[in-house]
Amino acid sequence: MRIAVDAMGGDHAPQAIVEGILLAAKEYSDVEFILFGDGEQIKPVLGDSYNTDKIKIVHTTEKINSEDEPVRAIRSKREASMVLAAKAVKEGKADALFSAGNTGALLASGLLIIGRIKGIDRPGLMPVLPVIGKDDQFVFMDAGANADSKPENLLQFGILGSYYAEFVLGKKNPKVALLNNGSEEGKGSELSKKAFELLKADESLNFVGNIEARELFSGDADVIVTDGFTGNAVLKTIEGTALGIMKLMKSSVLAGGLKAKVGGLLVKDALGNVKDTMDYSKHGGAALFGLRAPVVKTHGSADKVAVYHTIKQIRKILSSHVIPDLVTHFETAKEESDKISE
Amino acid sequence: MRIAVDAMGGDHAPQAIVEGILLAAKEYSDVEFILFGDGEQIKPVLGDSYNTDKIKIVHTTEKINSEDEPVRAIRSKREASMVLAAKAVKEGKADALFSAGNTGALLASGLLIIGRIKGIDRPGLMPVLPVIGKDDQFVFMDAGANADSKPENLLQFGILGSYYAEFVLGKKNPKVALLNNGSEEGKGSELSKKAFELLKADESLNFVGNIEARELFSGDADVIVTDGFTGNAVLKTIEGTALGIMKLMKSSVLAGGLKAKVGGLLVKDALGNVKDTMDYSKHGGAALFGLRAPVVKTHGSADKVAVYHTIKQIRKILSSHVIPDLVTHFETAKEESDKISE
Repeated sequence: MRIAVDAMGGDHAPQAIVEGILLAAKEYSDVEFILFGDGEQIKPVLGDSYNTDKIKIVHTTEKINSEDEPVRAIRSKREASMVLAAKAVKEGKADALFSAGNTGALLASGLLIIGRIKGIDRPGLMPVLPVIGKDDQFVFMDAGANADSKPENLLQFGILGSYYAEFVLGKKNPKVALLNNGSEEGKGSELSKKAFELLKADESLNFVGNIEARELFSGDADVIVTDGFTGNAVLKTIEGTALGIMKLMKSSVLAGGLKAKVGGLLVKDALGNVKDTMDYSKHGGAALFGLRAPVVKTHGSADKVAVYHTIKQIRKILSSHVIPDLVTHFETAKEESDKISE
Repeated sequence: MRIAVDAMGGDHAPQAIVEGILLAAKEYSDVEFILFGDGEQIKPVLGDSYNTDKIKIVHTTEKINSEDEPVRAIRSKREASMVLAAKAVKEGKADALFSAGNTGALLASGLLIIGRIKGIDRPGLMPVLPVIGKDDQFVFMDAGANADSKPENLLQFGILGSYYAEFVLGKKNPKVALLNNGSEEGKGSELSKKAFELLKADESLNFVGNIEARELFSGDADVIVTDGFTGNAVLKTIEGTALGIMKLMKSSVLAGGLKAKVGGLLVKDALGNVKDTMDYSKHGGAALFGLRAPVVKTHGSADKVAVYHTIKQIRKILSSHVIPDLVTHFETAKEESDKISE
């Protein structure tokens, strides 16, 4: 399998990206990497590993910055590392795209260059999040690829997430829930009520009903579906709350004087555990899912370990054949609906 | 001032409610309380304080339960403690309504019995939340009174929140921000883009633009406006994340053996601080704001201290005259628009 890497995206690029790729290349001999970016900066980090048959560089000095307007950037910067990497996937020279760069531009590259699975109206951004209290995970979709969603989009997010949970996370008959403002049937906005009906009616899904945001981390659902505006707010609220609590803990411990400081040192490991659990980049990246190939984004601040984990995740997605299976699912669905309408 | 109290609402009613009222009555000699509920259960808790000129009971055995369907409940249970308390406010026998009961039923009582301020289309649920890192607060609205909102509703939430922040929290020229999926102008859903335009055009507001959920607790805004569906998800995500982190901290400390346990004991105070800061019931209740009188809800699990803090907050709202001022604001706005259309 071949992964196209945007080596210039992210706060610590290309250093952290290339170091992460080296870690992954060492472990996975079945993966080839094509690094898109400035060869002058990439080569010194690669060292001896340059131009082995496993790691190649496609040199370009253009790149998309974090403040660039996404669609305009991918249209005007035709030689940007991210754009060239996406084109390599489109042209079949690579099987997946990885970037830690501008999220909006990556969404645009996925949508406009790589393209959607036939039958999927809108791809969604899907991070893998931790269940708290047991060693488990769930997927959350859409975490913000779309500002406005329709009920049909939410149904498709449910199907996409269910395939991912089953084939990539290895869950049998994954439980799909709809994020809503109450757990009872009949609750919700116009959008969520209609999405509920569609999810309930789809016999391919194990739909377990509504879930409230309070229960996100409970493990009650393997796939949690919501519109991209709410999903974006929820994901950023998790981040803001977790960082806020860390800050409060630290200042409380400092204000408590020596005794608390000693305690603080002792529980530093525990806090580290919390940070590792809550930091979703440690669980891999957020997949932009619903495209013809895996496009996976990790945090802009990702270090080499986060890059390594994201590559591990991409490898798992490619090995699982989840995307060809999704293509078949939606083609079959389309054929059936065509038959009915004939 | 006179506060109508639904003494039967909440998990620990009437015990915790009545004990909280006693705490408040002891401190605030200018407040009279009318307790609606089962006299047989309330009297023993009140003890000697029964039927002083400060605390009276209106006996009723009917009550609304947490699982009751809101609108149906307030229509069919005409003698329920919450309904009678709302009627007392409507009839001018009390100035404000307090309950720890069924949130939906309280919203319905406020809307259908007490009624909206003229010019307000939809009241919103407005908790007061902590700024992290300094001793400050902000208001967040709508936290879930409405499942669907229009741009005009979000403008009104901004005005309502701004009045509250100025007159009740004592902030001069409060900064109003719109919760959105990006901080730049032009970002967002159809709804949030239109709401942005309305908020920006309103000269009575100090509108500072978009804010992302990651920055909720930053203190960058005194009033954060959003639709009720997103607001509900955000508030419950804060709760779920905070509880999840507490759980992780505890299990990490326990798993760490003796050394970490000693540390755990030492930082228990620090964790307590975090809990107090994040627990918004300690900052008072969530006001259902936009009605002709203050209607304030505290957590169903509220203890006597939370009840006391909520009464303190209601007293502050009544003393501030914020509601008569809002009535004038919207009447003036209406007269001006009538003049223009003549």
